[in-house]
Amino acid sequence: MGVVKKSDNGKKVSRRKFIAATIGGLAVGGAAGFTLSRLTAPAAPFPREIQDVISERKLEPDHVYGALKTYVPGGWQDEFIMFSSGGHSGQVLVFGIPSMKLYRVIAVFTPEPWQGYGYGDVKTMKLLEKGSNGIRFLTLGDTHHPEISRTNAEFDGEWLFIGDKLNARKASISLKDFETKDIVKIPNTQTQHGGACASPNTEYVSCGSQFPAPWEPGRGYKPGVTYVQLTETNYQEYFRGTMTFLRFDRRTGKFDLANSFQIELPPYMQDLEIIGWGPSDGWAFTNSINTEMAIGGVLEGRPPLEVAASQNDFDYLHIVNWKKAEEIVRAGKAKEMNGIKVITLDTAIKEGILFFAPEPKSPHGCDISPSGRYIVIGGKLDPQVTIYDIEKIKEAIADQRFQGEDPYGVPILRFEDVKAAQIEVGLGPLHDEFDDKGHGYVSCFISNEVVKYTLGPPDYTGDKPFQVVDRIPIHYNIGHLATPESNSPSPKGKYLVALNKWSVDRFPNVGPLLPQNFQLIDISGEKMRLLYDCPIGLGEPHYAKIISIEKLKPLEVYEMGTDPETFSKHPQYVEGKVGYERKKEGDRWVTEVWMTLIRSTITPDIIRCKQGDLVRIHMTNIETTKDATHAFAVAEYNVMASIEPGETATVEFVADKPGVFAYYCVEFCSPLHLEMAGWLEVEPV
Amino acid sequence: MGVVKKSDNGKKVSRRKFIAATIGGLAVGGAAGFTLSRLTAPAAPFPREIQDVISERKLEPDHVYGALKTYVPGGWQDEFIMFSSGGHSGQVLVFGIPSMKLYRVIAVFTPEPWQGYGYGDVKTMKLLEKGSNGIRFLTLGDTHHPEISRTNAEFDGEWLFIGDKLNARKASISLKDFETKDIVKIPNTQTQHGGACASPNTEYVSCGSQFPAPWEPGRGYKPGVTYVQLTETNYQEYFRGTMTFLRFDRRTGKFDLANSFQIELPPYMQDLEIIGWGPSDGWAFTNSINTEMAIGGVLEGRPPLEVAASQNDFDYLHIVNWKKAEEIVRAGKAKEMNGIKVITLDTAIKEGILFFAPEPKSPHGCDISPSGRYIVIGGKLDPQVTIYDIEKIKEAIADQRFQGEDPYGVPILRFEDVKAAQIEVGLGPLHDEFDDKGHGYVSCFISNEVVKYTLGPPDYTGDKPFQVVDRIPIHYNIGHLATPESNSPSPKGKYLVALNKWSVDRFPNVGPLLPQNFQLIDISGEKMRLLYDCPIGLGEPHYAKIISIEKLKPLEVYEMGTDPETFSKHPQYVEGKVGYERKKEGDRWVTEVWMTLIRSTITPDIIRCKQGDLVRIHMTNIETTKDATHAFAVAEYNVMASIEPGETATVEFVADKPGVFAYYCVEFCSPLHLEMAGWLEVEPV
Repeated sequence: MGVVKKSDNGKKVSRRKFIAATIGGLAVGGAAGFTLSRLTAPAAPFPREIQDVISERKLEPDHVYGALKTYVPGGWQDEFIMFSSGGHSGQVLVFGIPSMKLYRVIAVFTPEPWQGYGYGDVKTMKLLEKGSNGIRFLTLGDTHHPEISRTNAEFDGEWLFIGDKLNARKASISLKDFETKDIVKIPNTQTQHGGACASPNTEYVSCGSQFPAPWEPGRGYKPGVTYVQLTETNYQEYFRGTMTFLRFDRRTGKFDLANSFQIELPPYMQDLEIIGWGPSDGWAFTNSINTEMAIGGVLEGRPPLEVAASQNDFDYLHIVNWKKAEEIVRAGKAKEMNGIKVITLDTAIKEGILFFAPEPKSPHGCDISPSGRYIVIGGKLDPQVTIYDIEKIKEAIADQRFQGEDPYGVPILRFEDVKAAQIEVGLGPLHDEFDDKGHGYVSCFISNEVVKYTLGPPDYTGDKPFQVVDRIPIHYNIGHLATPESNSPSPKGKYLVALNKWSVDRFPNVGPLLPQNFQLIDISGEKMRLLYDCPIGLGEPHYAKIISIEKLKPLEVYEMGTDPETFSKHPQYVEGKVGYERKKEGDRWVTEVWMTLIRSTITPDIIRCKQGDLVRIHMTNIETTKDATHAFAVAEYNVMASIEPGETATVEFVADKPGVFAYYCVEFCSPLHLEMAGWLEVEPV
Repeated sequence: MGVVKKSDNGKKVSRRKFIAATIGGLAVGGAAGFTLSRLTAPAAPFPREIQDVISERKLEPDHVYGALKTYVPGGWQDEFIMFSSGGHSGQVLVFGIPSMKLYRVIAVFTPEPWQGYGYGDVKTMKLLEKGSNGIRFLTLGDTHHPEISRTNAEFDGEWLFIGDKLNARKASISLKDFETKDIVKIPNTQTQHGGACASPNTEYVSCGSQFPAPWEPGRGYKPGVTYVQLTETNYQEYFRGTMTFLRFDRRTGKFDLANSFQIELPPYMQDLEIIGWGPSDGWAFTNSINTEMAIGGVLEGRPPLEVAASQNDFDYLHIVNWKKAEEIVRAGKAKEMNGIKVITLDTAIKEGILFFAPEPKSPHGCDISPSGRYIVIGGKLDPQVTIYDIEKIKEAIADQRFQGEDPYGVPILRFEDVKAAQIEVGLGPLHDEFDDKGHGYVSCFISNEVVKYTLGPPDYTGDKPFQVVDRIPIHYNIGHLATPESNSPSPKGKYLVALNKWSVDRFPNVGPLLPQNFQLIDISGEKMRLLYDCPIGLGEPHYAKIISIEKLKPLEVYEMGTDPETFSKHPQYVEGKVGYERKKEGDRWVTEVWMTLIRSTITPDIIRCKQGDLVRIHMTNIETTKDATHAFAVAEYNVMASIEPGETATVEFVADKPGVFAYYCVEFCSPLHLEMAGWLEVEPV
């Protein structure tokens, strides 16, 4: 289409035989100008108009560069896809890079009607119910750390994982259809932060607790039924953190609690976590804050939590030998507790599974360099990144060189024994990501910048290891940052996304609740360059993972009659079957409906049932055309389903109110979309 | 910051004394090339790198144009703000134009935790409850037509309105804080499509029904309690459509049902609607489909709805004298029915309030030219737009020139008497928008294009009225389209957004549920040009209204202690008050809490209550800094609030499960954000 339009325009522009004009608004330091000219015939159709646009819009050189680096025309592919958590929206956001276009929101913890997620569709209702684990029907989440499934520690693009900090849950999302397939409540854990990190072949996905939860002695934490009075003594005695290795079944997409295990941890606030590869294969790491074990209590005469929790100069990097832990579990040394095998703190210490290393100060991020050798910690209240060497850690553990132990008996390695380097980077360093050239990039929350530094060998082989080499201001308050396939053996470099918490003056004012700001930064050269400011006005994303687009192989349409829960034939799909029947199931009257949707017909278009019936509709979108999605809603019944081409879905609701209710296709699918409707007649009884 | 970086780069680039290179990948029709050169000294820092980018990325001239026309650097303003419905996401989306950046999602009909909307926050829970009107607690909507409040028919940027088709509701949103302030269920109406259209000074907002609802004779339609068996006879006798004029109080943002009125309509499916200005001031219009009054019933031997509803060559444009209707209501001739004054069909006919004009064929859009003179109808199944002249309509009515009446006795004007013109535009014409130069733009769903045509005088004063002058392909299946301030006296031209239903091959594959595609089109010149493809992966927007950004004056922060429901002091805000007390209210134990949030402290940080207590927390964000939003959530309690600077909000929940539950600030607000937490102790009883 573009070609047609271009030749249309070509006629007009061909009159311009030569164009060379200095463009206004482009002065750099008052001296430079930017000029476009046309040297070859026939006429290029646009130079003059480009001058005009730049001049009229007063674009500066960096703007022109940013525009041209990020513009992805319709029909083109982005280079990368970014999966960002949606923060307390409870969802996952899918962006293209470098376009920064939002291609998709994936419903995970929060019901979302456009996707028919949690509005009567049986598979998603079951999912939310299962994820609620009897706590109550949870309809929100605070999503934090996305992770992509791995093969040999490389992201393989098959599955996505995302955690809910608020309720300690983990979800799996298929990257075949970008839909949530499982939600699991992490046992013995109230809140979860640390991140999803997959083991090198995705046998496990790790989850660390955030705020310690009260445990009943020997019986762990049960949602809403474990009560221990909150005192400083009880906190130390009965509250516990956890690190959980959730077994994942790559074939079904389900977590398998029976084959998962958990390690009991002291009641510090465990923070970011990661599982190693290469030289750190078999090891997992999580840092911690509040090793002071403060509980707050301003009204009760104690100092505020954030003050009391920030006293120690060093907290503890937790070093976990997860492969050994797995062996311990296989050897029957773990204890079943609320549906999961728990390695108690005593066992973990005794068996040599858990070690600490000092880390300054109230640290935050915990990341691993591409080689798998360096564990990098952001200091948060310390202006440095601290880099640990797994070889040194392994050596020190082998030699049993400890400086002592924490109050729970966990052995503490000597800082100097395990440290590779410390680099002073800026104020409030939080998270580190890496490129393909041996550089680390750290987000500095307080000094509002991304700082680029060199790693050491084998990641960086130049002559200036562990040094700052560049810095770029961001706008504003950067939390995480993300580079393509960082925290894997093969980061791709090129781009960096700064996940900024504040946007302040970067966007037009849309009221007191401002969007966040994702800034796309070009890291292909020596100097970092800002390319694009992308507002996030639908949640407060926490972290993102970026993957090369060619690693993703999503479905375009389902095979006819597919149940997306299993990717196999839906038991109620029978080709050509439409109609309904009213029958008794036990004590209950059920009106069961087999429905098809195709442009622009819903069949049946009248369903007659009686008040009190359970209405169960098996609906198949019998389209085979990509994008021919239909949706289904019933007026006043709070029911909504989205049925993609080939999908069969089942919706259930109780016809509790009498009347005649319109139902209709809610996706504008055809010119007669408005007429794609029917009636549910509910006869009063 | 940009300047610092530029001079850094300047050094490197200044070595390049002259650059002139033909750029590859730019061939147009195989013949043209695009060249950049630098003619003036000293060196501009970017021409060479721009060549490189264009060449490496193989950008074509149209791409460069699109990139530079749409790139809005961080810190810059867009020219326009677009309010788009979110379709069955139930929300409203706020975009910038030309950047196409999504600045904000506004929660309206669907609970949304990031905004703390519907998760225990009392004001939003009340709003959703009120909007549910006893039907059930509705947690979704199918938003269709946004509208902006008007002064002298011009958009004034104070209020936004949006309707829920699925449940016949209307919401108001303040453009001071971009928050929903009212939701009202439209009486006697089950579903609502027609649109929100404000009267010239926003005395009323209009809403037309979509699918007729069963009425109890003389008593209207009550949600879930009106049952009439669905037969063709009953449909004609007892089902009715409505056109409602909701009184709006601009001061409070509330709809006032007591001073609203409604007109009973025949059981056609009323479609788009609009209220006139200028020569059409005092008149409202809605078109209709299914004047056949088909009810479907394939399983019962009748033809499918969409076939039977598409038989007539002409349907009826409804012409309503709403000012006269208002007088009739004041004169006491309307009948109170379920909380609203209804002008019955008989009264409407007798009093000369309702007239029909033939309109071909199963029409869809209904729009008014800037002058207020022309009512433009998209033919949908007719390849023309049909343009009516209000002067001719008024004359014909004055002369009582009718061709007959419909089965309900509504007088039908003669088509030739009221028609100004018909223009053959393309297949499946739906909606029309206008620019500032006398042009209309119509979306053609089937032929996948936007077609530009001339209006007649006084809108267009050239010598080729009512003719097609340009067309541009879109990708794909365009529904609505939007131009800045169209459907008002002063459209602004410049841009057009095509709201396309399908995107198919325009974006990377993200699974079977594809995003929609908003295409931004440049209409500043004679020829339309495609600028940008914007994916919409979070709902299926229906229509959008675009307003000049300078008309919006949103708040940056609230005055301290503001209740956003009223924009006045929250009754529970007392400066410096923090703490909690447990007391009895009637039979119920209440733990009432006064809480403040400021970086990085929640006070109190321990709340001790007993199982079964109603916990009521009045929380004030005592920040005065823009963007210093805090949020509040309690683990496992499904509670989430967002509290913007200066806001006081009240959250309520029943502490039904014992334990010690972490609560925390969910907006990453400061380096010690993770430590901004506290504990809710619920003692078992």
